[in-house]
Amino acid sequence: MTKNQLAPALLDKLESFLSNYSFGEEPNELYEPIRYILKLGGKRIRPLLSLLSYGLFQDDPEKILSQAAAVEVFHNFTLMHDDIMDQAPLRRGKETVHEKWNPNVAILSGDVMLVKAYELLLPTPSNLLTSVIQAFNQTAAEVCEGQQLDMNFEVRADVTEDEYLNMIRLKTAVLLGFALKLGAMLGQASEEDQKHLYNFGVSIGIGFQLKDDLLDVFADQSKFGKQVGGDIISNKKTFLLIKALELARNEDAETLNHWLKVEEFDPKEKVKEVKTLYEKIGVRKLAEEKMNEFFDAGFSQLEKIQKVNESYYQGLYDIAQALVHREK
Amino acid sequence: MTKNQLAPALLDKLESFLSNYSFGEEPNELYEPIRYILKLGGKRIRPLLSLLSYGLFQDDPEKILSQAAAVEVFHNFTLMHDDIMDQAPLRRGKETVHEKWNPNVAILSGDVMLVKAYELLLPTPSNLLTSVIQAFNQTAAEVCEGQQLDMNFEVRADVTEDEYLNMIRLKTAVLLGFALKLGAMLGQASEEDQKHLYNFGVSIGIGFQLKDDLLDVFADQSKFGKQVGGDIISNKKTFLLIKALELARNEDAETLNHWLKVEEFDPKEKVKEVKTLYEKIGVRKLAEEKMNEFFDAGFSQLEKIQKVNESYYQGLYDIAQALVHREK
Repeated sequence: MTKNQLAPALLDKLESFLSNYSFGEEPNELYEPIRYILKLGGKRIRPLLSLLSYGLFQDDPEKILSQAAAVEVFHNFTLMHDDIMDQAPLRRGKETVHEKWNPNVAILSGDVMLVKAYELLLPTPSNLLTSVIQAFNQTAAEVCEGQQLDMNFEVRADVTEDEYLNMIRLKTAVLLGFALKLGAMLGQASEEDQKHLYNFGVSIGIGFQLKDDLLDVFADQSKFGKQVGGDIISNKKTFLLIKALELARNEDAETLNHWLKVEEFDPKEKVKEVKTLYEKIGVRKLAEEKMNEFFDAGFSQLEKIQKVNESYYQGLYDIAQALVHREK
Repeated sequence: MTKNQLAPALLDKLESFLSNYSFGEEPNELYEPIRYILKLGGKRIRPLLSLLSYGLFQDDPEKILSQAAAVEVFHNFTLMHDDIMDQAPLRRGKETVHEKWNPNVAILSGDVMLVKAYELLLPTPSNLLTSVIQAFNQTAAEVCEGQQLDMNFEVRADVTEDEYLNMIRLKTAVLLGFALKLGAMLGQASEEDQKHLYNFGVSIGIGFQLKDDLLDVFADQSKFGKQVGGDIISNKKTFLLIKALELARNEDAETLNHWLKVEEFDPKEKVKEVKTLYEKIGVRKLAEEKMNEFFDAGFSQLEKIQKVNESYYQGLYDIAQALVHREK
């Protein structure tokens, strides 16, 4: 199997596993939202990382489809609950669960999704189950910590770069790390390799989020899925804004604070002005450097692995490269 | 140890386990609500059932304090999320988490509590862990199903007795059953005894909820903790109301429907009139008979157990008797 066929073939199997899995039937309000949010799609990067990671060490990745699906189900549980908290009307262009049904349904259906994630981990051999669930518990708690920090940061003006990097590590990156570690644990990789893969995931995860921050401001609108400048319009505390608040001096600081405070404005003008400011203050460059630093750190972890199956190594490398070079 | 000292001694150990357990620290908004809700108290019946059930078969119940605590933490997670859904201002006379903090904190802190319940199950020997978590997953999903059905029933006028009994089985009773089964599983009881203890818990759990419905209307106000008649005032669909709707004829049906529809009323008058109607239609007697049926079924399951430690058997018997005879 060449590197180009590996990921699509695994994704097909995963998709078919997810759509055939019996999450439950009655009451319908509890289980239908699970199928709904999973059908909204997404790139399925996390379970793919688990399958590829396992494939580095063993030849039969379809054996861990259930555990890989657990990671995707957990991820979608966090989306369902985050959307309530963020009062988001849309997810992947479709109504969010709390909009389509109501917030109570989204709370309870999300709760069951978290239970289902544990259910999907259960086919793990019993000698590995304790450590798999332990690692999952730690990650799950950290993801919640990241979400709480993110909400706390919304109402704080003095968030530091380190605090921000720690928040995105928790909210986004550790789950990529866990996805890779899970595959390695199930594939009976050495502790060393498990650690390298975990660190690879965390580093590219942080790079991934910094890329997100950059794309939201500097993406090519013809290629980008969302409205470019959305974060600027909503004053979202991204790496760019945090660094700009730290580094802006004199009239730059005044201009930035004006745009943060003004309540009635032309969105296009605000985006244009703040974007110009980000370039001028140099925070675009700083964000790009920081992002590349994390991506490089990730790749150097990947290189350390005692790999068995070269094609799976290539598959992981390709995914990470796609994250580095994505334009949407 | 006599039967009177057994439960208090176990409860002391459990309480000290719960207050010493490190749920987490940062961010504070995530972990403080966990300690807060656990400190509100409660009778800790569920973990006590686990400890006593284990004690039937093994001599060292303090070995499973962590797993018993898991049941209590799970129960409190459901209270935290149910209180958001029910918009309840108070829990055990104190502010609910979503009132004291906000709904987002209650959602996220509840999510972490569910993760912590799994964490507390982890000290289970690995040869038992898969089946313990499998049983827990099933129960957790069923409790969510019960809560969703309860919410669905609020807006339905045609709920049947069987539907109601199924709802309270899921929402309340299966967790008592699981608590007992968990102790039995960890205590290496036979499959038969695990089943008897589970069924004992489910039956007394349903009896417990029917007792709740009865006490809310017919309790002695000087002994009852809450306002007697609260369910009548809010038109809560209890066993009594469901049976009354089914059985009331002619002017009784008219009177009942009047009190269900009228929006401005004297609470005392409504409680008095509906209460009289419940006696007249005979639904008080029906509820008492149904409750006793479930309690009796429970005790007959308990009697079937191949018990080892008589004092623990007596402890379980005493708890169930206390549930039968409680006046608040």
